Amino acid sequence: MELQRLETKEKTGLVVVITGNGKGKTTAALGLCLRAAGHGLRVCLIQFMKGDLYAGEIDGLKLLPNVEHHLTGKGFCGIRGNPYPFREHRANAQDAIGLAGDKITSGAFDIVILDEINNALKLKLVDLSQVLNLIATKPPLIHLVLTGRDAHPDVIRRAHTVTEMQEIKHAFREGIEPQKGIDY
Amino acid sequence: MELQRLETKEKTGLVVVITGNGKGKTTAALGLCLRAAGHGLRVCLIQFMKGDLYAGEIDGLKLLPNVEHHLTGKGFCGIRGNPYPFREHRANAQDAIGLAGDKITSGAFDIVILDEINNALKLKLVDLSQVLNLIATKPPLIHLVLTGRDAHPDVIRRAHTVTEMQEIKHAFREGIEPQKGIDY
Repeated sequence: MELQRLETKEKTGLVVVITGNGKGKTTAALGLCLRAAGHGLRVCLIQFMKGDLYAGEIDGLKLLPNVEHHLTGKGFCGIRGNPYPFREHRANAQDAIGLAGDKITSGAFDIVILDEINNALKLKLVDLSQVLNLIATKPPLIHLVLTGRDAHPDVIRRAHTVTEMQEIKHAFREGIEPQKGIDY
Repeated sequence: MELQRLETKEKTGLVVVITGNGKGKTTAALGLCLRAAGHGLRVCLIQFMKGDLYAGEIDGLKLLPNVEHHLTGKGFCGIRGNPYPFREHRANAQDAIGLAGDKITSGAFDIVILDEINNALKLKLVDLSQVLNLIATKPPLIHLVLTGRDAHPDVIRRAHTVTEMQEIKHAFREGIEPQKGIDY
């Protein structure tokens, strides 16, 4: 059958929050990159607290035109096995917030995705005022997507679309190690 | 910094369920395609009840090598504005179940994603026994991902990883129309 094409009449730059403790937040952010690439839209994905471990998306994203990808961190702050002190994580996240501000206002992107920023805020690597300022100063037509568990209520209040991803089950609780292509 | 590479020692074919009423289920499935493509894994994505409306992922998925994409339906059964009778939706979904069985056992894929199948089961377009049979006869190393709201408890029981995506807010409730790149 022939595909019908929607055309958005009134364009609005949405603020989208993807939070909760379940698997799928970053994965959904990657799906947005893929969908946007299909439309020829320009995306900037900035990942907070990532940059220590390889994941398939690092090469997957290279397949998409018009998607710029930044790994800005050194892994999750405070989790077991992460050797970097708080001040280093904070310095990386502060650089990432600066980068985010530049990209959002650059005019070079239709969608900016800040992966794990909710988590970075919860861990005090960035400040609430900094995140609210990014939202407040965003050009009206830019979509801004904020992922990570424990989204701040003031961020949720300013968002148009918010999904909470809840873990019902996770394979690692049965002792199954992370599987390539699904977990990383 | 240098990226560390995980290597899964004990490979297990996971059953992953993505359910709930929130935005992000299909989007996460697309993200899995992107992640898997980055690893060079082979993915088959079969979408139930989709095929009436264009969405960015249709062209986005074409950018990924080793991802096969099937639109098997005519839109959501029973929603306002969908003109097709139940028996036509059921016939399409029955074809899709047959296709899914073929792809899962073909040896040609590492990951098979059945998008909206939970919803198709809830709407009686496919039968519980058919879905459980797909899970039961899946080769041990194939990952099988089932998305859609209202996942059946017997499907959840057989899954390793289950995320429920809950809607906290959605832009359309404020009267904002679907936005290209985010909503479709």
